[in-house]
Amino acid sequence: MPLGKRSDFGDARYAGVEVNYAHDIAGTMQEYLLCGFDFVLAPLVQPGHEQPALQLPQDGSAVTPVIREELMLTSATWGGQIVGKVSSWIDPDSPEPELAQRSAAALQQELSWAAFLGLQAVLLPTPQQQHKGAFNHAQVVNQALGGLSHMALWLQLPMTEPPAAQQQQQQDAPAVANSSSSSSSFDWFEYWCTLFTLCEQSSLLGVALVVPPDLPCKRAVARWLAQPLKALLLPTSVFTTNKRGYPILSKAHQELLSTAYRHNVQVVLTGEPLHKVAPAPPQPPPPATPAPESTIAAAAAAAGGDVLPFAVNDPGESHVLRPYWEYLCYLFRRLDGGAAQEQVEAGYRDYLQAPLQPLQDNLESQTYETFEKDVTKYACYQAAVHAALLDRVPDDKAEETVTTLMVVGAGRGPLVRSSIAAARATRRKLRVYAVEKNPAAIVHIQRMVRCEGWQEMVTIVHTDMREWQPPELADILVSELLGSFGDNELSPECLDGAQRLLKPGGISIPASYTSFLAPVTTAKLWDAVRNYKDLEHCETPYVVKFHRHYTLSPPQPVFTFVHPNPQQPPDNNRAATLRFPRPAEEGVGVLHGFAGYFESVLYKDVTLNTHPPTHTPNMFSWFPIFFPLREPLTLPAGADVITHMWRKCGKHKVWYEWAVSEPVACPIHNPGGRSYYVGL
Amino acid sequence: MPLGKRSDFGDARYAGVEVNYAHDIAGTMQEYLLCGFDFVLAPLVQPGHEQPALQLPQDGSAVTPVIREELMLTSATWGGQIVGKVSSWIDPDSPEPELAQRSAAALQQELSWAAFLGLQAVLLPTPQQQHKGAFNHAQVVNQALGGLSHMALWLQLPMTEPPAAQQQQQQDAPAVANSSSSSSSFDWFEYWCTLFTLCEQSSLLGVALVVPPDLPCKRAVARWLAQPLKALLLPTSVFTTNKRGYPILSKAHQELLSTAYRHNVQVVLTGEPLHKVAPAPPQPPPPATPAPESTIAAAAAAAGGDVLPFAVNDPGESHVLRPYWEYLCYLFRRLDGGAAQEQVEAGYRDYLQAPLQPLQDNLESQTYETFEKDVTKYACYQAAVHAALLDRVPDDKAEETVTTLMVVGAGRGPLVRSSIAAARATRRKLRVYAVEKNPAAIVHIQRMVRCEGWQEMVTIVHTDMREWQPPELADILVSELLGSFGDNELSPECLDGAQRLLKPGGISIPASYTSFLAPVTTAKLWDAVRNYKDLEHCETPYVVKFHRHYTLSPPQPVFTFVHPNPQQPPDNNRAATLRFPRPAEEGVGVLHGFAGYFESVLYKDVTLNTHPPTHTPNMFSWFPIFFPLREPLTLPAGADVITHMWRKCGKHKVWYEWAVSEPVACPIHNPGGRSYYVGL
Repeated sequence: MPLGKRSDFGDARYAGVEVNYAHDIAGTMQEYLLCGFDFVLAPLVQPGHEQPALQLPQDGSAVTPVIREELMLTSATWGGQIVGKVSSWIDPDSPEPELAQRSAAALQQELSWAAFLGLQAVLLPTPQQQHKGAFNHAQVVNQALGGLSHMALWLQLPMTEPPAAQQQQQQDAPAVANSSSSSSSFDWFEYWCTLFTLCEQSSLLGVALVVPPDLPCKRAVARWLAQPLKALLLPTSVFTTNKRGYPILSKAHQELLSTAYRHNVQVVLTGEPLHKVAPAPPQPPPPATPAPESTIAAAAAAAGGDVLPFAVNDPGESHVLRPYWEYLCYLFRRLDGGAAQEQVEAGYRDYLQAPLQPLQDNLESQTYETFEKDVTKYACYQAAVHAALLDRVPDDKAEETVTTLMVVGAGRGPLVRSSIAAARATRRKLRVYAVEKNPAAIVHIQRMVRCEGWQEMVTIVHTDMREWQPPELADILVSELLGSFGDNELSPECLDGAQRLLKPGGISIPASYTSFLAPVTTAKLWDAVRNYKDLEHCETPYVVKFHRHYTLSPPQPVFTFVHPNPQQPPDNNRAATLRFPRPAEEGVGVLHGFAGYFESVLYKDVTLNTHPPTHTPNMFSWFPIFFPLREPLTLPAGADVITHMWRKCGKHKVWYEWAVSEPVACPIHNPGGRSYYVGL
Repeated sequence: MPLGKRSDFGDARYAGVEVNYAHDIAGTMQEYLLCGFDFVLAPLVQPGHEQPALQLPQDGSAVTPVIREELMLTSATWGGQIVGKVSSWIDPDSPEPELAQRSAAALQQELSWAAFLGLQAVLLPTPQQQHKGAFNHAQVVNQALGGLSHMALWLQLPMTEPPAAQQQQQQDAPAVANSSSSSSSFDWFEYWCTLFTLCEQSSLLGVALVVPPDLPCKRAVARWLAQPLKALLLPTSVFTTNKRGYPILSKAHQELLSTAYRHNVQVVLTGEPLHKVAPAPPQPPPPATPAPESTIAAAAAAAGGDVLPFAVNDPGESHVLRPYWEYLCYLFRRLDGGAAQEQVEAGYRDYLQAPLQPLQDNLESQTYETFEKDVTKYACYQAAVHAALLDRVPDDKAEETVTTLMVVGAGRGPLVRSSIAAARATRRKLRVYAVEKNPAAIVHIQRMVRCEGWQEMVTIVHTDMREWQPPELADILVSELLGSFGDNELSPECLDGAQRLLKPGGISIPASYTSFLAPVTTAKLWDAVRNYKDLEHCETPYVVKFHRHYTLSPPQPVFTFVHPNPQQPPDNNRAATLRFPRPAEEGVGVLHGFAGYFESVLYKDVTLNTHPPTHTPNMFSWFPIFFPLREPLTLPAGADVITHMWRKCGKHKVWYEWAVSEPVACPIHNPGGRSYYVGL
């Protein structure tokens, strides 16, 4: 019974509810699932059992169910509809050695027990704040993770702000300081970063954040999205009441939930019902829900079908928590599906793609087709050629002057089309050479020229632009060779090689381009890179649509290339050192790598940019690039990041090397292009 | 022609000399080798060639000798007797792009050239201080390292002090501040740490330190010994003059050189001769030197024999640098060879050994034999039994009382011997049970008892102490089950198991023991661990005689065990969190792992300690233990280290887990004992 069927939210189950311990777990389940929730968060052990439920051998190797009649549920139900909750009394860092010892044993036992039942996830209690590091807790969790194959551990944590941000707020509003300062200066995000490192960034370890009545600032929330945030625990006490007595959320909380839904973060309602609403009038039975697509939802549905057939007179609608569920439903359904392009991109979110090597490989027709769909990009090119023609040929010479324009790397011809459109609009005469090395693409251009009747105007040249001997020189040289990082598909080398085709004083479109780099937190992408389990993949940049990421400091310019290239002979080696400032208010950070973008000047004020602050609206041809780090680096609060980036040119290849030297150094990545290069 | 033959200095060649560029390299070599030096430090390229000597392809793939007639020397000579020196004009971080580009190319070329000649090492110039990081230099060096298989790169660096230490000195002596503050607040050690990390701690990268006239404090020198310090460059200007006009060194410099010799650090004389001494009276030709043992010295000798036959009238003795060489010789020969034990230990220095598993495996006779040689240890045991007997049996009861003493884990019987010696000295009556599970060791005890005529007094019991059913209970239980880290050979588990053999109020010798841990820098050991190329070896503790190491903070106590154990049932799980303070004056540090020691109380004031400040004199049974870190951690100046150590007990095994949480967290090592454990 998902709240709504939205393919772009992937594997999230949508709304859960925390339930008390009950001997009749099957009945409890039925009650809440009929009410509308997708899963329950249920204690693993009856509260009050303040010691290991059974005396285990010291290494916790055997588990026998003794506490409750678990076997009345199938493992599909356990796995699909129940998240287990570890006993909250457990405190392996207690100063009392006996309690610490019992706690470690009990924690180990409850986790083994949950794994045995086939649970998909278990919620771990928040360590007590006075223990700070809670290192014994970390040790037990880490040891348990080593024995788990699929069950996830969600650590329950408060949603706090970095201490410096709290101080600043208190300075800003000293009178109302008390409400938010009750959380003291302990930042649970910092605790999480340490724990996650101690546990080797295990893919099975995640966070469940408790939503407070007063939300922290947006950046303090955003940093969690780049971590494995799995759930928001939403207490009923956070809801306010509308005029009709129904529970509703503040604007800020509504936004938080929308963000959660968009990032596959589950929402779990917790606490007692505090809003008693008059029962709704009787309604017809709900229509059959469509079969959910995701495997987990399917498992849940199968399990539901197994033990929980729907009663004809659904008693769920009168459940005391039903108004909360309906409100969550409302928020979920209200989510904007986004523009068509956003929906297309959803499938690419946080998915690693190898960058293209268009110089080495011939592209497939489908790749051209995808790129040609970007109307905005070709409109920009048309505007650039338009402006260049007007500058190059005054109105009074428009009749007599024929401008020679070469499209180098013409592909299936979109730039030929844009250039001719610009010539028509400006009433300038044009002779076009379309230079392309890919024989399959040539076929397409030929057909285009035939269909449009451009045979007089367009000469098709099937060769590599670096080798072509032209019959004349060009006034304007047009190309679209930029990669996600600007120069990474070897535009500089190609255009240096094609520069001899251009008349002195001729125009290159693009005229220049600059790459940009920003330090990012992105636990998900880093985990994906690590899962390749080799050095090579850890030293390779990827084209990626960043989704669950956090930009630690705004992007800065890296390398610039200008065409025609004034430097002769050209040297396209580059080295850059960038200092990324990080305000102390943002607290500690985790650096997983760098996001790369570009800005390009096609001609004068016509630009094509993927650099976020100046991103060309509605253009989608380029996703950013991701340069990973082999190991994540923890950044102390306020510590700037100093990054080094090299572009190196060899005889047959071009590659990047990158490194961090502050706050702490890491090895130079990809020396000599050993893991990744672009072939010339 | 080594300065002296000392097996404990391994592969060091002893004294080199810097020479100017000369076209006749063979003649130059002959001159300096006849003078007494073992190798020369010679420029690779004629000074003044301020650009790459030949235009290389951009990736430096081909090298052709063009500069000098190198081929007149064999590659054995190049490899054994010449260290190459890279041109000092090279500056890849120059703000002038053209010079930077030429520098990178020239550096690459000179290194390729040196590798082609078969040089064993090349000296790299000190980057210019105003470039701080000199990151392009690092990039070129790192890329070059990737292509080298055996040639080492020695980076020439000044010997500086941490900025905080300099400041303190200036405060202490503001009047004479200028001489040492000329080195400004830039600490080249910090630069080195960054560079070494950027270059992935390459085994081929080392340091050559320039010895200044005013030496930094001892700690500032000591930290370099834990790094791959390969050579000291000793300018002639550092020498002073004695009454007879001969060059000599200050006391501090003499000590520095002794330290260098002891740590296999080569000394290279640099600069012009400044001490003109009257020629020595003619002497008979030198006696034939014994064949050097180390392979490198042998190669040098072979090469010397090849091109440089000794003239009968050795002209070397009148060489202007001869007095310096003689002084270096004198310092070297004056080195104290050390006690016999130190010479035995020399072979174990910085060598990783797996800890013993005496409970799982039966020891070999030779291992017993080695341990039994430690006279001090058994004297301590005798003193402990002595004191215990006096306490247990008053003088007036000495005749009538028979004390029952059990040696658990008797091995070949040394503790039986010590106990009986104590009984004799105290005139107490003793009944001894010697319990031992190793059948081979039992044979030895039987012979000992027979030879000594102790059949009445000693009962030999061939069994595991944890299983034995004794005919009576013991007054005193004696054991020697301690490992390098105290409890790491399972003394706690064994003695808990043997505790039932002891009368209530009986005495255990040892009565307690405490492990100690200290954070250390030890690039050599870390490199040795890494060279195993697997996770397992990075998470295993090793028994090791630390030599080239630096203790970042004094050792602190970790786990304590007391016998008889008052806790029932016993729980030998332990957890410890240690904060190691680091004064800011010591500058940045590098943490490679932890050195472990122990203190044990045998009985009352009789102790056996390996903890350095309280180390039992002349005892050599235990080397320290080394817990490595998977990755070295760079520690900012003044940053404390917080370390966590767990001792975990399972049904069949005991293991340690360890981690660092500050200044930056690292993964918990060895979770669940996956890489290393001790079997029960």
